Amino acid sequence: MIIAQLSIAPVGVGTSLSKYVKIVIETLKKEQIHFESNAMATVIETEDIETLFAVVKKAHMAMRSTGVNRIITELKIDDRIDKNATAQSKIKAIQ
Amino acid sequence: MIIAQLSIAPVGVGTSLSKYVKIVIETLKKEQIHFESNAMATVIETEDIETLFAVVKKAHMAMRSTGVNRIITELKIDDRIDKNATAQSKIKAIQ
Amino acid sequence: MIIAQLSIAPVGVGTSLSKYVKIVIETLKKEQIHFESNAMATVIETEDIETLFAVVKKAHMAMRSTGVNRIITELKIDDRIDKNATAQSKIKAIQ
Amino acid sequence: MIIAQLSIAPVGVGTSLSKYVKIVIETLKKEQIHFESNAMATVIETEDIETLFAVVKKAHMAMRSTGVNRIITELKIDDRIDKNATAQSKIKAIQ
Repeated sequence: MIIAQLSIAPVGVGTSLSKYVKIVIETLKKEQIHFESNAMATVIETEDIETLFAVVKKAHMAMRSTGVNRIITELKIDDRIDKNATAQSKIKAIQ
Repeated sequence: MIIAQLSIAPVGVGTSLSKYVKIVIETLKKEQIHFESNAMATVIETEDIETLFAVVKKAHMAMRSTGVNRIITELKIDDRIDKNATAQSKIKAIQ
Repeated sequence: MIIAQLSIAPVGVGTSLSKYVKIVIETLKKEQIHFESNAMATVIETEDIETLFAVVKKAHMAMRSTGVNRIITELKIDDRIDKNATAQSKIKAIQ
Repeated sequence: MIIAQLSIAPVGVGTSLSKYVKIVIETLKKEQIHFESNAMATVIETEDIETLFAVVKKAHMAMRSTGVNRIITELKIDDRIDKNATAQSKIKAIQ
């Protein structure tokens, strides 16, 4: 299981970005993945790295389709190879 | 209100880092701030930028006090000046 | 042109990571892209987003092939759609 | 020596940010630190963590003084405790 942190933000469309962030979230909802958004980013869980990159590309392209002139996309991947970590098991481990 | 995303990880102490992440969380608990940890980072809310930097420095120093040889600390600050955004209001805006 | 910032680091292999970072750089050298490493990350320029994701996946997989148990990969993409920005033009603009 | 990667960007001031990034760089120039900007961020070297946070706060406040409504500041700290790493020694190690 791959756990990742994703943030996609448009530049040059004003101070409030929530309308645009919603488009990213709607795109993620259509995928067969588990994700949860917090105030700063969205934590995504995917089966493998191929699925993750495919999903991130779709989300980035969804932001592009809004017609914005610049996009900042940030992705942090935690690829745990020695055991099957999930977002839930990671949170449980620090409690 | 300042909303920030914080991650503090030691390098060179093995594959599992949860024992060390707990130390950061214990440090945050002693502060007069609101925070919530997810699988990839901790979202912090502070009154002002001074408080945020003071808290992050304390958390980084708590990691140092464990005797680790290297620390990677990552901080992303969302400083909304035109209105009083909170972690909760940001999440509500994207739902 | 897509400009991106990439960092791929193994976890659990000791304090010094340069031996592993070299593997990422060797992988990037085999690609038809322009890139430059600094002390904290590697700045990459690619023609399009597909090429970028393909290159990042290759670099991540090169790190996996070393046999490490955990990898933290960080990618920040600056996708400027309204004009053809390059790493060089961005640096020139702030001088 | 602390090595860090800093990025400070205003939100809601249009697509081009170079005018604002220059203000951050001018602020850094007044400090007794070594730094170098690339196309995605600025790599900073400071003697200790206190100096780093003081400098980052000054740079963030310089961005605030421009009157922008929202600022995204990103800081990644590489705190190597077991040896005196510099930006130059880190780059040399991966060549």
